[in-house]
Amino acid sequence: MTEDGTRPLHAPRAAAAGGPGLFVTFEGGDGAGKTTQAALLEQWIGARGGSVVRTREPGGTDVGVRIRDIVLHHRGHIDPRAEALLYAADRAHHVETVVRPAIARGDIVIQDRYLDSSVAYQGAGRVLDAHDVRALSLWATDGLLPDLTVLLDLDPAAARQRLDADDKPFDRLEAEKGEFHARVRSAFLDLAAAEPDRFLVLDATQPPESLAQRVQAAVVARLS
Amino acid sequence: MTEDGTRPLHAPRAAAAGGPGLFVTFEGGDGAGKTTQAALLEQWIGARGGSVVRTREPGGTDVGVRIRDIVLHHRGHIDPRAEALLYAADRAHHVETVVRPAIARGDIVIQDRYLDSSVAYQGAGRVLDAHDVRALSLWATDGLLPDLTVLLDLDPAAARQRLDADDKPFDRLEAEKGEFHARVRSAFLDLAAAEPDRFLVLDATQPPESLAQRVQAAVVARLS
Repeated sequence: MTEDGTRPLHAPRAAAAGGPGLFVTFEGGDGAGKTTQAALLEQWIGARGGSVVRTREPGGTDVGVRIRDIVLHHRGHIDPRAEALLYAADRAHHVETVVRPAIARGDIVIQDRYLDSSVAYQGAGRVLDAHDVRALSLWATDGLLPDLTVLLDLDPAAARQRLDADDKPFDRLEAEKGEFHARVRSAFLDLAAAEPDRFLVLDATQPPESLAQRVQAAVVARLS
Repeated sequence: MTEDGTRPLHAPRAAAAGGPGLFVTFEGGDGAGKTTQAALLEQWIGARGGSVVRTREPGGTDVGVRIRDIVLHHRGHIDPRAEALLYAADRAHHVETVVRPAIARGDIVIQDRYLDSSVAYQGAGRVLDAHDVRALSLWATDGLLPDLTVLLDLDPAAARQRLDADDKPFDRLEAEKGEFHARVRSAFLDLAAAEPDRFLVLDATQPPESLAQRVQAAVVARLS
């Protein structure tokens, strides 16, 4: 199939036999445009008759909502390993009850953040070993990796400039935050380099519509 | 130190320098007498001036209570991996915030069920790999194993006779339950055989007081 906006999208694999659909995740730092690109992809697929499940972690299921409430709203300390295990529990239930059934139906799953976020943020925070966190997610999901992961790459300083036009110098906390986000970015790029077939790395400073076209092309390539 | 009921219990290791205490777990099927023996040990140590923390999983912490509520009272299906991860999250938080601090203070921690229960019940249920479940618990606890694990071993048929004097034959569900509990028992005995230094295996049909004396002797041996 060529990148032809008029042909039905999921013809070759998905619709006919209810065969495997596609699992697409968006990754990157805050402010990189993940939500915008996920929405553009959802619209584009929907306009071509494809069936989309748009979802998120944590909190994409009833059990997940309760787990999310513990992780985000518990007053007081939570042990870092307990926190990682709670995120993994949310992921396990979400993958088993939402993502895998959708893929089996032939749907296209579009998800904001998945295991790469856990690995990149954990690796940047340096509390737990990033390899352990990856192994935990892979066990939780029985090894489910996305067919396509779009990494929207953005210099944290540029992200900050986008959000804040002020010229005042960083205070120490802001500088630490900046270093943290630089480590997150670097961790994402390392993950992408390790799995070039799965990842599509995009320069998030490009216009949204041209980014969307690159994403569409990658989806079409994986469906054909 | 000899097994002398009049000498203070935690003299050699625990009290003086706030040095390491002791971590004692009780394992076995329902009805084997774990609660009775844990209570007898707590009384015996308390009478000798030892400081005891008696605890349980799941639900031994504020976070654990919320996790326990999901695992035990959620209406509807929970993915087995998610369930195992929730138990592991509870264990991680409990070990980090209750068990390890107590041991560091020189206390004697007495706990009803720990990772051996997760492994034995999971292995018997045959949903997840028992080795995976053990690895998960060991990661959650950063490798914390008890100094002493008392396995109260009891033939499930004997346990049933204890609880139910009726002579009516098993129905199919009860027979399946019987096979399940026989597998749990066998799994516990395998775990004990693999770590003979950690485990004390006791015949749970013996009188409670003589069992208690065997437990006391094992505690004294590990403190000296």
